[in-house]
Amino acid sequence: MEAPANAQRDQLKRLAPRPFFRSRWVRAPEGVEELEPAQLAPGFRAAGVACGLKRGGATDVGVLACDSPEVRSALALTRNAAAAAPIRVCRHECDAGAIRAVAVNSGNANAATGDQGYRDALAMRDAAAEALKLDPRAVAVAETGTIGVPLDIEAVTTGVREAVAGLSPSAGDRFAEAIMTTDRGPKSCTLRLDGVTVSAQAKGAGMIEPGFATMLCFVQTDGEVGDADHALRSALAVSMERITVDAQMSTNDTVLFQATGAAGEPLPDGLLEAVLLQLAVEIVADGEGATRVGRVAVRSAGDAEEAERVARAIANSPLVKTALYGRDSNWGRISQAAGMALAGEDVGELGPDRIQAAELASDSAEVEISIALGRGDAEAHVYFSDLTPDYIRINAEYTT
Amino acid sequence: MEAPANAQRDQLKRLAPRPFFRSRWVRAPEGVEELEPAQLAPGFRAAGVACGLKRGGATDVGVLACDSPEVRSALALTRNAAAAAPIRVCRHECDAGAIRAVAVNSGNANAATGDQGYRDALAMRDAAAEALKLDPRAVAVAETGTIGVPLDIEAVTTGVREAVAGLSPSAGDRFAEAIMTTDRGPKSCTLRLDGVTVSAQAKGAGMIEPGFATMLCFVQTDGEVGDADHALRSALAVSMERITVDAQMSTNDTVLFQATGAAGEPLPDGLLEAVLLQLAVEIVADGEGATRVGRVAVRSAGDAEEAERVARAIANSPLVKTALYGRDSNWGRISQAAGMALAGEDVGELGPDRIQAAELASDSAEVEISIALGRGDAEAHVYFSDLTPDYIRINAEYTT
Repeated sequence: MEAPANAQRDQLKRLAPRPFFRSRWVRAPEGVEELEPAQLAPGFRAAGVACGLKRGGATDVGVLACDSPEVRSALALTRNAAAAAPIRVCRHECDAGAIRAVAVNSGNANAATGDQGYRDALAMRDAAAEALKLDPRAVAVAETGTIGVPLDIEAVTTGVREAVAGLSPSAGDRFAEAIMTTDRGPKSCTLRLDGVTVSAQAKGAGMIEPGFATMLCFVQTDGEVGDADHALRSALAVSMERITVDAQMSTNDTVLFQATGAAGEPLPDGLLEAVLLQLAVEIVADGEGATRVGRVAVRSAGDAEEAERVARAIANSPLVKTALYGRDSNWGRISQAAGMALAGEDVGELGPDRIQAAELASDSAEVEISIALGRGDAEAHVYFSDLTPDYIRINAEYTT
Repeated sequence: MEAPANAQRDQLKRLAPRPFFRSRWVRAPEGVEELEPAQLAPGFRAAGVACGLKRGGATDVGVLACDSPEVRSALALTRNAAAAAPIRVCRHECDAGAIRAVAVNSGNANAATGDQGYRDALAMRDAAAEALKLDPRAVAVAETGTIGVPLDIEAVTTGVREAVAGLSPSAGDRFAEAIMTTDRGPKSCTLRLDGVTVSAQAKGAGMIEPGFATMLCFVQTDGEVGDADHALRSALAVSMERITVDAQMSTNDTVLFQATGAAGEPLPDGLLEAVLLQLAVEIVADGEGATRVGRVAVRSAGDAEEAERVARAIANSPLVKTALYGRDSNWGRISQAAGMALAGEDVGELGPDRIQAAELASDSAEVEISIALGRGDAEAHVYFSDLTPDYIRINAEYTT
């Protein structure tokens, strides 16, 4: 079973080395220019250093800071009821609308670590604030990695100070590396249009010892935004909120958006969405054991909620996900998942006249399927990864 | 990866040859006696024959009939909105409370087969009614197997007539074989207490070409029941409705309960539940690629709905299911799934003081885990299978 997965992964790597996945689904605005992904939006600096949380001297602490006090920001945090310490620090101890900087570590999620974990997350945040000479409430904190293990706070604060000393406007790649867990590679993207730059770094659905996937994303712009929170939520609604790997919500998910307005131009329509969708598809493509990405489009649903429910039922069906892996244009599984999502109603039979599934059988790395419910005008779509033997291997062959 | 799965499967087979899985969770009432599972409750006869739908001459048509016109019955049918033809025939053309007999075939689900499929399901039902000299509305029909393929109705009606000619009170095993798809073995159970017998035959979550699992269950008794529908739904609520393999709802799920009252004694408390729970756990144990069964108990939830939601989130989490396979006592994954089910609330941290997960690391074929939410008095539990490389192999290595 390994051969196709590895072959497919190698093919993905060949397609585009960096970012390794150029998606057919990203609609960049006319005239957009792609910069080196290490390049941050003007006015932002970052760094990544190794403090010893990860083995082999890999970078595991990152700091990203905005030079200007005129920043507007927004935070989107996991809604998981058992959220990790850094999430609770961000919820309770930060001015979400005026975040100047963020300190991040990988290798330890500081989750299920009790009161000490909360104090450690605060100490990490305070170390960054002190080194940057910022109000602590203007500094956010994010962590990803092992859960249930005390954080080596001495190592982390030393790393934070070292990172602050080495901040650079072209270290987006080092910062992206510092937030990786089992990601196959760093995920970052920088686009420019009409004198406005948007840069972003993300890490995704790689395994986290001992077990679950966290999504972190940091996005910066020198464009002007009226309402940062609204701008971020609108863009997430068509990117990060349209993806699923295994339908699991992490304890640590964090997205931070910062806008300085220093360019003196409004953020162009679609630029934020393009950057976030590119990274969202990369996260799915880099899902645990994933070899390819599907997009399911639900058409002619009764209403938006119904369209969404059916799309997620299909995208999260292990039978559809194994069909994506197995190159099996199996419309029956799509019909069954849709029928399940509409349980209690009678839609007659959802047969091949309603379902386009032929691309499942192709060798394409990105596969589009669709279903027409014939019940109204609403539409929804979701991006999802395949379910492969590697997923099982990664998640079952871990030993506590 | 194959070795542990096969070893575990062999172990299951050694434990109890027939029924091969004696569950620790089944609480049979005091004094209960187990009969040969081929033995039907008095007043019922069954048969299984081969009509050629399945390869290799395997039995694929079954008929089960009640001798007495005094029968009370209840049908529980899938709520899938894209239900198969036999489900729609049962919904619209049967007297659910007075079912004397059922005709079943495996090898073809007669799903997504259009108007012709509906006519075929009716013809199959009518052939059984004619051979049994019954009102057609007193005969139910159930089918399982390939979807989207026209039914060979000539073969099926020939098989139905042959089955009716061979009905026997001790052919529960042949009938159970006739409804199998990729089940590892027939599933049937007959218990007697206080002069009342309950017999049942089921098939479960084996793969069905081209793709999804159907559960069929037929249960008979000579005990007296006041309200057959209430008795069935109450028993299902603590058995078949407490299991999950891959959270997928089939287009063909059917449960038929028939009670004659001929014993002149009321159905003893717990007897129906014990038979159905035994078969339910066997269905989970025989899930696609499954090597062992978990039971997650949620305690001290705020209310029943919350307890149920958390239990299902844990039981359906692919991370928990791979931990069950991998013998990984990974409480972090249980915490994460519970936190996801309670999204939007803040329960603090769900750590090892709240979660019992040690049995995951054992070699037991049946594993119990639990979580205390500390929010109230409500409880719920769900039985689930592990997620294994065989699940992927079965579902991905199918070629249309």
